Amino acid sequence: MKIIVIGATGVIGGAVAKALSANGHEVIKASRKGDVEVTLDDPASLRAMFDKVGEIDAVVACAGNATFKPFADLTDADYELGFRSKLMGQVWVARYAMDRLRDGGSITLTTGILAQHPMVGSASISMVNAGLEGFVRAAALELPRGLRINAVSPPWVKETMVMYGMDPTPGLAAADVAKAYVAAVEGAHQGEIIDARSASRGAVA
Amino acid sequence: MKIIVIGATGVIGGAVAKALSANGHEVIKASRKGDVEVTLDDPASLRAMFDKVGEIDAVVACAGNATFKPFADLTDADYELGFRSKLMGQVWVARYAMDRLRDGGSITLTTGILAQHPMVGSASISMVNAGLEGFVRAAALELPRGLRINAVSPPWVKETMVMYGMDPTPGLAAADVAKAYVAAVEGAHQGEIIDARSASRGAVA
Repeated sequence: MKIIVIGATGVIGGAVAKALSANGHEVIKASRKGDVEVTLDDPASLRAMFDKVGEIDAVVACAGNATFKPFADLTDADYELGFRSKLMGQVWVARYAMDRLRDGGSITLTTGILAQHPMVGSASISMVNAGLEGFVRAAALELPRGLRINAVSPPWVKETMVMYGMDPTPGLAAADVAKAYVAAVEGAHQGEIIDARSASRGAVA
Repeated sequence: MKIIVIGATGVIGGAVAKALSANGHEVIKASRKGDVEVTLDDPASLRAMFDKVGEIDAVVACAGNATFKPFADLTDADYELGFRSKLMGQVWVARYAMDRLRDGGSITLTTGILAQHPMVGSASISMVNAGLEGFVRAAALELPRGLRINAVSPPWVKETMVMYGMDPTPGLAAADVAKAYVAAVEGAHQGEIIDARSASRGAVA
């Protein structure tokens, strides 16, 4: 398959691109500084990316920002960032991909564990991730031509925890998180929120 | 208790105001054309409402717009409306209420069945409602002074279905939906999404 991975220079996106390539797919790496340049919170940039790449079989988004900050300190600008980047950025990917995907193609987006299991500081991120999950469940009902849409929900990723100076023990390695994305692209899931921990244990195939 | 009901001229809000009054509470009806005028998607208007009303024990929001439209037809403006009105409007209510509520007070917001059970045309509404649910679960972890926050999830309401020319048989009467809001205000729920159908059967107390 010909697959765009948005956010391919990130920890998760890099692992996803590698895993898809290892399975024989043609992977186009898109990111702010990738083979194909794209900025998730800029709809024109997303449209230009699809125009440049042409017809594809799948698009995977592993990008998007939102602010982690105590609830009392979150500003309107923080909420706007999460809305425009991680939430609408991925909604735009889904909307624009609809016209570029070949029949039976797939859209795989990224939510996160905080959608369902919040922690102190996650009010905006939990909102954005949960919103994306609601969107995916609903949009799946209306995709034409056998197109599929799903979201992968990664837990904390070991490599990211190391970067933040956290104990990585409870985390999942990016290579294991990537298995959920591969399952979403190669499988038959539709409108599902795929728990990356289950996928890494082979429970999602 | 002294309670603001935002959206008190609506089908659900009217029933909630009536039920809370019947239980002996002092209810301040706020809406675009209510005793206290307020526009949910206008933060300045919300702050002015709280300034005018003074200290309160609870705030209930039964307002907020989002667009029901086929996925392929939803525009950026449609998504923006849902974000700014039903989602951020209620987030603003929660943020501003934090400083106005007496110790142990409560915030009760409104999500909806489409968050978890989408239908064709609900992509934006499902996104907004699910996002609100994620927000409520997370914000509940950080409220000071014993404050509580919850969201009621109404199913289709009989009175609304009649207005839309739908068969109201599967719906729940607004007076029954109101029981969930009363339970949220008078009970001890925290960070919960309260299914109005369960509450109307007495399963939520």
